[in-house]
Amino acid sequence: MRDFVYNIPTKVYFGKDQFSHLGEEVRSFGDKVLLTYGGGSIKRSGLYDRVMEELRKAGMQVWELSGIEPNPRHTSVQKGADICKEHDIDVILAVGGGSVIDASKYMAAGRYYDGDVWDFHGKMIPIEKAMPIVTVLTIAATGSEMDGTGVITNMDLHIKKGRAHPLLYPKVSFLDPTLTYSVSKYQTACGAADIFSHTQETYFAREDGMYFLDTVMEGLMRTVIKYSTVALKEPDNYEARANLMWASSWGINGFVRADKPFPWSCHPLEHELSAFYDITHGLGLAILTPRWMRHVLSEKTLGRFVKYAVNVWGVDESLPAWEIAEKGIECTEKWLYEDLGLTDNLTALGINEEHLETMAERVGGKIHKGFVDLSKEDCLAIYKACL
Amino acid sequence: MRDFVYNIPTKVYFGKDQFSHLGEEVRSFGDKVLLTYGGGSIKRSGLYDRVMEELRKAGMQVWELSGIEPNPRHTSVQKGADICKEHDIDVILAVGGGSVIDASKYMAAGRYYDGDVWDFHGKMIPIEKAMPIVTVLTIAATGSEMDGTGVITNMDLHIKKGRAHPLLYPKVSFLDPTLTYSVSKYQTACGAADIFSHTQETYFAREDGMYFLDTVMEGLMRTVIKYSTVALKEPDNYEARANLMWASSWGINGFVRADKPFPWSCHPLEHELSAFYDITHGLGLAILTPRWMRHVLSEKTLGRFVKYAVNVWGVDESLPAWEIAEKGIECTEKWLYEDLGLTDNLTALGINEEHLETMAERVGGKIHKGFVDLSKEDCLAIYKACL
Repeated sequence: MRDFVYNIPTKVYFGKDQFSHLGEEVRSFGDKVLLTYGGGSIKRSGLYDRVMEELRKAGMQVWELSGIEPNPRHTSVQKGADICKEHDIDVILAVGGGSVIDASKYMAAGRYYDGDVWDFHGKMIPIEKAMPIVTVLTIAATGSEMDGTGVITNMDLHIKKGRAHPLLYPKVSFLDPTLTYSVSKYQTACGAADIFSHTQETYFAREDGMYFLDTVMEGLMRTVIKYSTVALKEPDNYEARANLMWASSWGINGFVRADKPFPWSCHPLEHELSAFYDITHGLGLAILTPRWMRHVLSEKTLGRFVKYAVNVWGVDESLPAWEIAEKGIECTEKWLYEDLGLTDNLTALGINEEHLETMAERVGGKIHKGFVDLSKEDCLAIYKACL
Repeated sequence: MRDFVYNIPTKVYFGKDQFSHLGEEVRSFGDKVLLTYGGGSIKRSGLYDRVMEELRKAGMQVWELSGIEPNPRHTSVQKGADICKEHDIDVILAVGGGSVIDASKYMAAGRYYDGDVWDFHGKMIPIEKAMPIVTVLTIAATGSEMDGTGVITNMDLHIKKGRAHPLLYPKVSFLDPTLTYSVSKYQTACGAADIFSHTQETYFAREDGMYFLDTVMEGLMRTVIKYSTVALKEPDNYEARANLMWASSWGINGFVRADKPFPWSCHPLEHELSAFYDITHGLGLAILTPRWMRHVLSEKTLGRFVKYAVNVWGVDESLPAWEIAEKGIECTEKWLYEDLGLTDNLTALGINEEHLETMAERVGGKIHKGFVDLSKEDCLAIYKACL
């Protein structure tokens, strides 16, 4: 068990009647706000008007940046950082899902950097200061509302990359499950796959960690499995949306990862997929995860697979160990591809062998000291199994 | 499911090699520190010297207040608040268990109040400002290291009372499981009963809450049950001490209680016991809890008892519901009185019927809107069942 520092400063207003606190919280950081959002669904849903009304009541001056992409581009981030510099903005209010929040984190840091925001990756310039961020979450998926990580994409270089820093935690997040009633079945399923993956990637680590945190992760995975299927059948089931939303935050905010600071596997594999094909992150994870599981299952890793199958899926622990492990993977596949209805292969997405070698080359060395080290050949085999 | 605000700002250094950060963290709040501790065990263990060395290296001026009682008296709190006022102290460093930390919280608030600190209870004067507190935890039990609650006792009035306020959360806490190796078997058992009770009191609530949080609470209780017995057999088992320590913080820091802000039952019953007889809090809870369970078990509450028995104790869910519930209570008793070896009745502690009526009178009305409302008669019946 390793030492760790727990430090999650985000304050969260959770529930359906918390919106009246939005103005006072944003206002506590100053009177100039940059409102960031995506493609305009918040205008159709009426959320935009509700947010503007609260900001108006709080006496805020509002600038806007819309059109942030699902895999947010560094070019959009640059625009936001430039607006913040030009108008000396005090606080960013990100209204949307993980993409809008992730992009806003880089704007918050970029506001204090006189150069291209991609330098945070390309040149790994240090993050020394960042503006405060307040978020209103509209989809349960990435957990960006309560973590210090942002992922952005440079489509020119085909690079999708994340970076974490304590200064990037949102100061305040508003989590209203009713805002996710209108999330489509497809996006709900992809979000669930993403939340599940965050937890599962930490759960499958090369060292056993604290038992207590394992029980929390098992509970998180059972929660996502149980309520994702409910939310697909009943999009406005509050209990389902609330459980998914709070699970999205706790799967990745650092709490369960405490003593297991090891590299993940499926996320780096997926980032290459998104960088080349711009596919939905959760869908990429859903296609990759069971293939990765089969690839790394061995006598050495069997114990963790057995624990997973028994404690997450309720597989009968009196069966032979290999049979238990296999059933755990089968349950995962059934949930992802049948219950959630997600596509189970890359070919159906129009992806062929063309770039797989390059992707495997780029990601191979990175998954060192993960659950199982993956060479270029391992990565290529996993990608090919996904076709 | 109810709306809630999540706001736990405490930063935690967890592990066996984190002590080198103590000086810098304390120093970040100023250069005058009041060091508070209990009966002197930290001197015998060498912890006092280690703390002083870190404070010296950080250039701190140190004042001391020792002798804080296991059920801390308001008189000790007053002394601490007065020292802070007189010397314009910047920060309190509490080294000890829940009693030292609880007392320090009231000193931190009392430093800004020109009157008797008992007024925080007697007159319910508002808490508007409090000094920063840093803690070094030496026993896993109350969770005070990561919550905003303090409980102090006025022995003149026989009142033991708690109060919570966001300003009372410690800013930084150091949780080193090795510091609890020397905790006696008895105190380890009482601490485990306390951690268990915090979780169990939230778990048994009058409304069902978020499923995800129920899974966390079930994991917390399983963790305490599993590792308390390990720690009794092997006091220097790091895994056991670490699991108990982190569970102590998360059982009560507000996370699992989020959407269940209902009054507890056994804690108010126990506070009367401690106020009259100065017994160890965890022991009082251990004696009370199973009696309370039997008293409130009914057709109406059966469902929660079944869930508890199956998910915490692994009772066979194919049995009849009442049998499952009964087995859950029996498992609780076996763990508390056999595995932990705690006394199972008040008579053995020299307590008789004398004050029970008064205690029941005082606590009866308070447990309104708890899991089951308890009248004076209910409380008296529970106390008598403990004799």
